[in-house]
Amino acid sequence: MFNYAPRLTTLFTTLALCSALGANSAASEEMRNIILIIGDGFDDQHVTMARNYLSGNSGTLLLDEQPVRAAVQVETLSTDGTPLYAADSANTATTLATGVVTHIGRVGTGPDDADLVTIAESAVAAGYRAGIVSTSSVTDATPGSFMAHVANRSCENPDIILGGTIYGSKFPGCPQDAIDNGGPGSVAEQIANSAMHVVLGGGMKHFAEKISGSEQTVLALAAAQGFAVVESTQALAEADTDKRLLGLFAKSHLPVRMRGTDGRKAESANTSMLNAVNDMLGSVTQPEPMACEPNPDYGDTPPLAVMTDAAIEHLDANNAKGFFLLVESASIDKQSHARNPCGSIGEVEQLEETLAVALAYAETHPNTLVIVTADHAQAAQIVPEPSLFHNAPIPVYSPGKVARIHTPEGGLMRINYATNNIQSEEHTGANVPLFANQEGTELIKPFMRQREVFALMADYLALNR
Amino acid sequence: MFNYAPRLTTLFTTLALCSALGANSAASEEMRNIILIIGDGFDDQHVTMARNYLSGNSGTLLLDEQPVRAAVQVETLSTDGTPLYAADSANTATTLATGVVTHIGRVGTGPDDADLVTIAESAVAAGYRAGIVSTSSVTDATPGSFMAHVANRSCENPDIILGGTIYGSKFPGCPQDAIDNGGPGSVAEQIANSAMHVVLGGGMKHFAEKISGSEQTVLALAAAQGFAVVESTQALAEADTDKRLLGLFAKSHLPVRMRGTDGRKAESANTSMLNAVNDMLGSVTQPEPMACEPNPDYGDTPPLAVMTDAAIEHLDANNAKGFFLLVESASIDKQSHARNPCGSIGEVEQLEETLAVALAYAETHPNTLVIVTADHAQAAQIVPEPSLFHNAPIPVYSPGKVARIHTPEGGLMRINYATNNIQSEEHTGANVPLFANQEGTELIKPFMRQREVFALMADYLALNR
Repeated sequence: MFNYAPRLTTLFTTLALCSALGANSAASEEMRNIILIIGDGFDDQHVTMARNYLSGNSGTLLLDEQPVRAAVQVETLSTDGTPLYAADSANTATTLATGVVTHIGRVGTGPDDADLVTIAESAVAAGYRAGIVSTSSVTDATPGSFMAHVANRSCENPDIILGGTIYGSKFPGCPQDAIDNGGPGSVAEQIANSAMHVVLGGGMKHFAEKISGSEQTVLALAAAQGFAVVESTQALAEADTDKRLLGLFAKSHLPVRMRGTDGRKAESANTSMLNAVNDMLGSVTQPEPMACEPNPDYGDTPPLAVMTDAAIEHLDANNAKGFFLLVESASIDKQSHARNPCGSIGEVEQLEETLAVALAYAETHPNTLVIVTADHAQAAQIVPEPSLFHNAPIPVYSPGKVARIHTPEGGLMRINYATNNIQSEEHTGANVPLFANQEGTELIKPFMRQREVFALMADYLALNR
Repeated sequence: MFNYAPRLTTLFTTLALCSALGANSAASEEMRNIILIIGDGFDDQHVTMARNYLSGNSGTLLLDEQPVRAAVQVETLSTDGTPLYAADSANTATTLATGVVTHIGRVGTGPDDADLVTIAESAVAAGYRAGIVSTSSVTDATPGSFMAHVANRSCENPDIILGGTIYGSKFPGCPQDAIDNGGPGSVAEQIANSAMHVVLGGGMKHFAEKISGSEQTVLALAAAQGFAVVESTQALAEADTDKRLLGLFAKSHLPVRMRGTDGRKAESANTSMLNAVNDMLGSVTQPEPMACEPNPDYGDTPPLAVMTDAAIEHLDANNAKGFFLLVESASIDKQSHARNPCGSIGEVEQLEETLAVALAYAETHPNTLVIVTADHAQAAQIVPEPSLFHNAPIPVYSPGKVARIHTPEGGLMRINYATNNIQSEEHTGANVPLFANQEGTELIKPFMRQREVFALMADYLALNR
């Protein structure tokens, strides 16, 4: 059975050594750092799925070994001001980045469309460095909300900001945010013009667009603003720490590490003709079990931990003040939307490796607060295999789609996706977990709201707010 | 809109005063107590549903205000020794009660069918008192696992222990556990013969059965063994603390407090004829929103908090050593099986009131460890209302059943049940939350397994194990 564990242990160790022993990495008593790791759509079902697969049902994730664990309530406002009970990544990342509860789809903007100062921006204003790393396009909702301000998350580049068609629906764009109209521009343009020290992830296609009324691409603008641009793992490793760094390693989101056997995802149970006539009759065949296997499209994509290690190196070099670093494992969520549990599990594994890198750095840099949390809960439920009702004299199956995954320890884990009939699952509304290193012990309460997580981070860096 | 809050605040206060000021309640320096509160099927989706409804999306439950919050991994063994990733209440309650990981359906018995000593039993052996309170039949899996030992949870009374038919399937019973065959008897018989000090809940029908080869009912046996038997809230209030107490307030499980408008539960979306032909065409009508309202069948059923207060009074009276008390809010789970979110929310409210009673007692009795946890996760997901994809030019709906609930703060919370096609939902496999009072600060780690929760409780009472 396929299992990443041996290779990854080596990766952990190597990266941990790089961080701990880096030449520029002398700990300063004055330095203060935050590494905020967001697992997108990473709720307790996903934590448990990953634990069962990666460490065994009786094992522990590195997350489980952290001294601080809390629950975080997600808040979202409807446009008429009443609460919504399920969120998206844009409004929740905006809350984590700014402390303001806002509407679904908003990136760094309040319910009144005001541009909000993000923690990354105020950290830079206070003399810290700031970095953003994601496995998604860097213009996507979560990273975008820490460095840009648009009314809608889809306004990622200078073309779409003026409107168009998205998934068959007319999209009005964010005309008020366009540079032509005196706004700060699309997310990509705002990143190019930002004071971020390092930005790593996917999304080259958004930077390849031309700025309105100009022949200059957004990428050229970024270079003109002082970013060194890298596009490969090799170039990332060799990048000079003297320059600000923009690394774009895919056209859109980075490919994920794992997939189901032959690319299989969750599937419908196969019901007999008789069962189609009457739900209490006939028979049902569950989808065949599958294994998790490496995604052949992964190629030489830089792992999240490698990007994080590079980002820390750039943020840390000749820096006496400290930094704020956001790292997102974005595709835990995206793979749940797509009903691919192996995909989600592989991206939790990436988050685990990233946490190891962050903790190794914190080990030698005592004033480093490491927080892992999620933006919102997401579809995917572990359901009994076999059904609790398998002895019932009628066919029993889950609506929606299920995947039955062979685990390395010899179990069979059945995952159910059943929030939507269309090609994408819905987010869910449960409070999400939060984990932190020792530095968080006094700061984090057992129950918090996302705006309170923002507040404690801002306080930790003594930022004005 | 219907809201319990004012009435309940009064109940909280009254009960808290009873516990804090009870004549027999002088705190002893030597006394040591555990109050373990189990919310059956009470995972983070259910915690959040209840928070949103009872306290508002930005509010806090009493649970949220506790100084200790952890996550607990649920472990279950298949009969071939591999792990199962979703559990039932019998095997998980057995693990919490004994520290042993066992098979689904087992009550106080190990994977080898050995009768395991429960924490309630070893507490009694060490000179403590023990009590069990539940909103289910006291013979049901969770309470049963703390005071009885049978191979299968359905062996609740002397009739069914010899086998029969359950839900249309032949049930072999637990012949090896029958008294006729030299076993300890059904769960009801074992309760009657137990050394428990107080047992309160439902399940009279199981005690009305006659003991094999005898004209004596199980209830008569219990009385002969020294239990005072009460059957009403009034009789419970008047019960003498000099005698051991068995309170049975319903034939089976106690009725629940809340229900949906006119008894409505989650329902299927209504799809048009065209949509039935092609999922991408036609239209879908969501079920009408509903409110939560008092369940007219509730009558004068004693609330869980009232039973808990009475149990504490009986356990505490003239007791210098201390006690172990299990309290279960059982129907959070049962109402999720039945797809009634209002029912589940009302039973979380009962758990909250019970926690208030336990904390009030702990306030005046310093060596009192109060723990709230769940046995396993359970179906029910909060999904976006409207759908995240409501702008898509195709019909969008959740498979399975949904309920849209008006919340007191003016929101609309949509709950999706979609783990099963039959009349009962499946449990799910996420790790579950754990909450504790200040006494738990040093004892509880951020991540534990259910067997470790048993171990810390046994250590707290210095029990042999």
